[in-house]
Amino acid sequence: MRKCKFCSAMTGIYMREHHLAVCKNCFPKWFEGRVAETIERYKMFKKDERILLGVSGGKDSLALWQVLIRLGYQADGLYLSLGIKNDNYSLDSKEKCIKMKEKLGRELYIVDLKNEIEISIDDARSIHLKTCSICGTVKRYFLNKITREKAYPVIATGHNLDDEAATLFGNLLRWEESYLRRQYPVISGTNFFARKVKPLAFMYERQCAIYALTSGIDYIRTECPYSSKATSISYKENLNQLENRHEGIMKFFYTNFTNAKKKDNAMMKAEEVEIVSCQICGEPTTVAVCRFCRIKEKIMNKKKNETEKREK
Amino acid sequence: MRKCKFCSAMTGIYMREHHLAVCKNCFPKWFEGRVAETIERYKMFKKDERILLGVSGGKDSLALWQVLIRLGYQADGLYLSLGIKNDNYSLDSKEKCIKMKEKLGRELYIVDLKNEIEISIDDARSIHLKTCSICGTVKRYFLNKITREKAYPVIATGHNLDDEAATLFGNLLRWEESYLRRQYPVISGTNFFARKVKPLAFMYERQCAIYALTSGIDYIRTECPYSSKATSISYKENLNQLENRHEGIMKFFYTNFTNAKKKDNAMMKAEEVEIVSCQICGEPTTVAVCRFCRIKEKIMNKKKNETEKREK
Repeated sequence: MRKCKFCSAMTGIYMREHHLAVCKNCFPKWFEGRVAETIERYKMFKKDERILLGVSGGKDSLALWQVLIRLGYQADGLYLSLGIKNDNYSLDSKEKCIKMKEKLGRELYIVDLKNEIEISIDDARSIHLKTCSICGTVKRYFLNKITREKAYPVIATGHNLDDEAATLFGNLLRWEESYLRRQYPVISGTNFFARKVKPLAFMYERQCAIYALTSGIDYIRTECPYSSKATSISYKENLNQLENRHEGIMKFFYTNFTNAKKKDNAMMKAEEVEIVSCQICGEPTTVAVCRFCRIKEKIMNKKKNETEKREK
Repeated sequence: MRKCKFCSAMTGIYMREHHLAVCKNCFPKWFEGRVAETIERYKMFKKDERILLGVSGGKDSLALWQVLIRLGYQADGLYLSLGIKNDNYSLDSKEKCIKMKEKLGRELYIVDLKNEIEISIDDARSIHLKTCSICGTVKRYFLNKITREKAYPVIATGHNLDDEAATLFGNLLRWEESYLRRQYPVISGTNFFARKVKPLAFMYERQCAIYALTSGIDYIRTECPYSSKATSISYKENLNQLENRHEGIMKFFYTNFTNAKKKDNAMMKAEEVEIVSCQICGEPTTVAVCRFCRIKEKIMNKKKNETEKREK
């Protein structure tokens, strides 16, 4: 036990990487202040800009929602019901989002994948693409679509430092240059896409968890049943082992990368790509048919084939 | 036990990342062939070019020396006696190098740090710089110096894939751009420095160990007594854990990086730096006094102060 830096109460919450002890009463304020700093440093958004936040029911996105409102920003939520495990996982997570919407008194849009496209993530698994990759595409698709339809200038997501560091690590292991060029806590908006921001990008996952616990956020505690084999989880474990030996290294890693991007460096500039309308759905894309429509078609064909087989 | 791909003998040597089983009799030939491919792919050197190889008495550098001779290249050795742990570690390793020189019938230059500069690596530890960093500076200094004095056009070192991947990982964690620009299996020579090559850069450390064992190389098996706390060792362990879960990832990591460098990419080009002569020793450097001379001066001052204290 140590003394809280702010009120001297005894506390078990000690952040080695900051050499900082904070008690459970002071923690939420400290956390919110750090997020506020990130928002300002990266000029993510202003008080008069409406923000649409992708919420999953997990600790990170719900924590971010509450932080944004407490800091005086205008943030609404978008929950995408993916139909995971016959809806059991999805129903639980939706309920947590609705509770938070009521607590904060803000708008929550709910999109049900089955209503929109007649398929669920459970179906998507049948086409042997990585589930997390499909899920990412689907989430980005609807987040972009609803943001444009509802005219929000900013999309926020609850990616934390562990997420960003693991993504960066994966992109470096594969040397995915186009992803490396794009990875940053804020991506400017264009005619086609809203500005994208990650206000928790410098907060460790465990700090987000402590914030959720110390500020009374009710979130879904079970991991997505499909995530256990995700490569990103393996990278996260690996980076956490490294963090245990070299405290602060994860933050150092991501910070050094983002600082390098701030400098004028050819490697770091996003390539200019031409945006066209998807021939099927009309959403902006860089190819003739967008990835979302290609995945959807693949799943629909698979389902059709299976129905035909059964009928024979 | 599996069947050797080349002679069908039963073998316990199986390389998951290549899906390849090779028996102990066929292994040396296989290993030498892979190194030959790397030398050719990166145009490291030709048969008529004299090579100076830094040898430490460890498995990697001695393995490389033997491979180069067996492949028909002209490689001589340079052993630097660093005076580690009152010479015990250094004497053992020197003896292994002398044995190899006799086996191969080539030249071995032996430089004794104490004769050259009156200090040892044990002394160097007193100035609180990281030992491995000092050791690296000293080794590079004499390798460059002797190579130029003896007019070798090529310097080779025994860095293996684990070494290169760990260095790359460290450079990426710290985003050391100038190091990232320079890291490559071959660095062209200039007016001041010989070409530098790492023919084992694509061979896993364990493959080098198997080569040493299966081709009867007597090498020093104990690690350098100062290396246990080296950050690079921690990165290596980390990458090895990742390799256990994702076989081949270390090679994939380093290969993707080197392939990205092959492409025309501004990030990947080494910066042009002006080379001047060190004001103290005359060796080529980018600053007024080279790092080697600065370290040497620091140690000498420290020793002088201690002697004065004792005499008081």
